[in-house]
Amino acid sequence: MSVTAPQGFSAAGVAAGLKSTGKPDVAVVRNDGPQSSAAAVFTSNRCKANPVLWSEQAIRTGSARAVVINSGGANCYTGPDGFAVTHATAETAGELLGVAPVDVQVCSTGLIGLLNDRDALLGGVADAVAALASDGGPTAAEAIMTTDSVSKQAVVTGEGYTIGGMAKGAGMLAPSLATMLVVLTTDADLTPAECDAALRHATARSFDRLDSDGCQSTNDTVLLMASGASGVKPGAQTFADQLTDLCRDLALQLLADAEGADHEISIEVVGAASEDDALEVGRAVARSALFKTAIYGRDPNWGRILASVGTTGAAFDPADLDVAINGVTVCRNSGLGDDRDQVDLEQRQVHVRIDLKSGDETGTIWTNDLTHAYVHENSAYSS
Amino acid sequence: MSVTAPQGFSAAGVAAGLKSTGKPDVAVVRNDGPQSSAAAVFTSNRCKANPVLWSEQAIRTGSARAVVINSGGANCYTGPDGFAVTHATAETAGELLGVAPVDVQVCSTGLIGLLNDRDALLGGVADAVAALASDGGPTAAEAIMTTDSVSKQAVVTGEGYTIGGMAKGAGMLAPSLATMLVVLTTDADLTPAECDAALRHATARSFDRLDSDGCQSTNDTVLLMASGASGVKPGAQTFADQLTDLCRDLALQLLADAEGADHEISIEVVGAASEDDALEVGRAVARSALFKTAIYGRDPNWGRILASVGTTGAAFDPADLDVAINGVTVCRNSGLGDDRDQVDLEQRQVHVRIDLKSGDETGTIWTNDLTHAYVHENSAYSS
Repeated sequence: MSVTAPQGFSAAGVAAGLKSTGKPDVAVVRNDGPQSSAAAVFTSNRCKANPVLWSEQAIRTGSARAVVINSGGANCYTGPDGFAVTHATAETAGELLGVAPVDVQVCSTGLIGLLNDRDALLGGVADAVAALASDGGPTAAEAIMTTDSVSKQAVVTGEGYTIGGMAKGAGMLAPSLATMLVVLTTDADLTPAECDAALRHATARSFDRLDSDGCQSTNDTVLLMASGASGVKPGAQTFADQLTDLCRDLALQLLADAEGADHEISIEVVGAASEDDALEVGRAVARSALFKTAIYGRDPNWGRILASVGTTGAAFDPADLDVAINGVTVCRNSGLGDDRDQVDLEQRQVHVRIDLKSGDETGTIWTNDLTHAYVHENSAYSS
Repeated sequence: MSVTAPQGFSAAGVAAGLKSTGKPDVAVVRNDGPQSSAAAVFTSNRCKANPVLWSEQAIRTGSARAVVINSGGANCYTGPDGFAVTHATAETAGELLGVAPVDVQVCSTGLIGLLNDRDALLGGVADAVAALASDGGPTAAEAIMTTDSVSKQAVVTGEGYTIGGMAKGAGMLAPSLATMLVVLTTDADLTPAECDAALRHATARSFDRLDSDGCQSTNDTVLLMASGASGVKPGAQTFADQLTDLCRDLALQLLADAEGADHEISIEVVGAASEDDALEVGRAVARSALFKTAIYGRDPNWGRILASVGTTGAAFDPADLDVAINGVTVCRNSGLGDDRDQVDLEQRQVHVRIDLKSGDETGTIWTNDLTHAYVHENSAYSS
C-alpha cells in the first residue's frame, strides 16, 4: 500500500508513452486532507533539474495537495522549454484536482538533457488523476521506476496514525541529500514546520548515509505530505524516529537494488571523536574504487580501507586503527590481525567495522561494491 | 637512460626475490656528486608507509646521496618491524656506499600490510650497489614496476645540463600529491632550496593533476637529486619549467598505462574565475564513476558531466555552461548542443572541454575511463 497506507491519500500510476518500453511512467499522489502540511528536501547539486527548481519554490508555502512524478526523462538541462513543461504539469494537475498549481509538487527522473514530450506527459497526468484510488500506492511506486528492478515501498504504524513511503533510485546514489525520488505520506496531524523538522531529522540519518556510487543526482527530491486524517498528533521525537525508521527501510531497499551491485556493504565507524568524523571516514571508504572492487573480488583487503581512512581529517592515530570485516579483526593496531582467510565474503551482506579509538561516537555509511555489472549497465546504456 | 642521463649518477636494478615472479624488484640510484642537493614531496595520506616516515625525516637535511626502491611489498602498516627493515635498508646502503644512512632515501611499493623479507631486501641492496652503472637507468626503472606494463622514463635537455626521471604507478593514482614513486635527477648546480622550489612547482602542475581512480596511495614519493656535475647553474624559472615538462611527460606515461584503462581523458576547464575553481571542477568530473563508465561505453554523456560540475563550489551559472567532447560542443548554454553522434570516442585520447564562462583561468585534470578490465584487475588480485 505504501503511500496510500495512511488515511487521506490516493494514488495512481499510468503509462503515458514517455518510456520507450511502454511501461508505466507517470504517477500522481494526492493528499485528500483535511490538512495539506508538507515539507521537502532537494538535491544540493547546483545543477538542478527543472522540476526541482519548481518544487523548491512551491514547497515554501508549507503545503502540497499532490505530487506528479514522471520517469522516462529527467527534464534537467532542457532550458526554458523544460521549465514550461514542468509548469504546465503543475497547472494541468492543479486544474484537474481543483487545487492551485503551487500546491502541486513535480518530480522527474530519467536521462539528463531529454525534454519530456509535453502532450504525452500531460495526457498521462490526466489519465493518472482519473485513476486515483485509495489503494493505488503500488501502481504509483511502479510508475516511478527507471533502472530499478523492483519498486520500493514501506509502511510504519504509529499509535493511531500511519506513515507510508515509496522511493526510486538505482544509480547516482550518493549523499549530500537525497539522490533519489521519495514520497512519504502520513495521516498524522502535523504543521508544515513539524513536517520539515521530522523530514530533515530522518533524511540526515537515512538517505544521506547512502553512497552507492559517489554520484550525486540533479533531480533528487524527498517529499513528506501529511493529511491529518487520523486526527492524531504524535510526539515530535516519536514521529521523527518513526519517519527515520521508514526512510532507513527505503534507503536499504535502494541499496539492495543498486545498479550492478553484488554486495550491500555497511561501513560502521566506531570510537570516533565526533559523529561527523565517523561519517567522513565512512564516506571516504565508500568512495574508494579499490575497496569496492576488492569486496567484489571477495578480498578482505584492509590496506585499501586504511589508505582511504588516511585521506580524511578525522581524529585518529594512524598507528592504532582496528578493522573488522564480517566479524574478523583482520587489522589490529594498524597491523596484521586475525587470519584473513576466516572472512566469508560470499554472502551479499558485508559489515566493515573501523575503530578509530579516539572517542565514543559512531556512524554508518552504506555502499555497494564495484562490479562488472555496474560498468556494463553504465557504459552500455545512456542514463 | 632516464635517471642516469645527467652526469654524476649511476643506477641498477636487480632481482632480490621479493616478487614471487622473480622479476627485478630492488633499484638503487646513486648521486656521485660533486653536490648532493635534494628535495622530495610525499603522499599527503595520513596513513603513511614506513619508508615515507623515514624519508620525510631524512630529506630535511636537504641532501640525498642515494635512493633505494623496492617493489614486491609496500612496507605499510607493518609496525615497528617494518620501520626496522626500512632503517636497515638505509644503513646497509649507506655502509656499502660510504655515506651516512640519513643520506639514503628509501621507497617501497606493493601490497599494503606485507612486511618485506629483510634478508632478501638487504641482499638485493648489496647486489644493486655492486651493479651500479652510469647507464643503469633502464634496469632501475624496470625494477620499480608493480602492475605497470611498461617502465616510465623521460629526459629533458637544458642549456649545458640534463634532467632525467623514472616513475612507476598504475593504480591508486589520485591527486593530493604524487601517488606514485618518481625519481628525478639532474646535473644542474642547485641548492637544496632551489631543488625544493622547482620540485613543488613541477609536481603541482603534473602528478597532482592526475586522477586515474580517485585512490590516494600510502607510499607516494617524488624525489629530486642534483649532482651539480655539469657545473651549470640554470635560471630558477627556466629549470622549474623544464622540470615541469619532464614531470608532465612521466605523468602522462602513468596515465597511458593505468590499470585497465581504455581511454586517456584530459578534462580542460576554461572560463574559470580562478585556477583553483578550474581544478576543482576537473577533479569532480574525473571522480565520477558514471562519467568514466560513459566514456568507456563511447557515450558522450554530457548530463553526467554537468551533474558532477554541480557538486562543486566553483563560480559558474548552472544555466550557462558549455561542454565539448573531442571538439564537438554537445552541450551549449546548459542545453542540447551539436549532434552527439558526431563525437568519435573510438580513439584512446579523449578531450573534454568545460567552459564555466566566469573568468579567464584554466586548468586540466587527466583521468582514465572505468572499464571491465579495471574491475577485473582490482577484484581478481590483491594489491
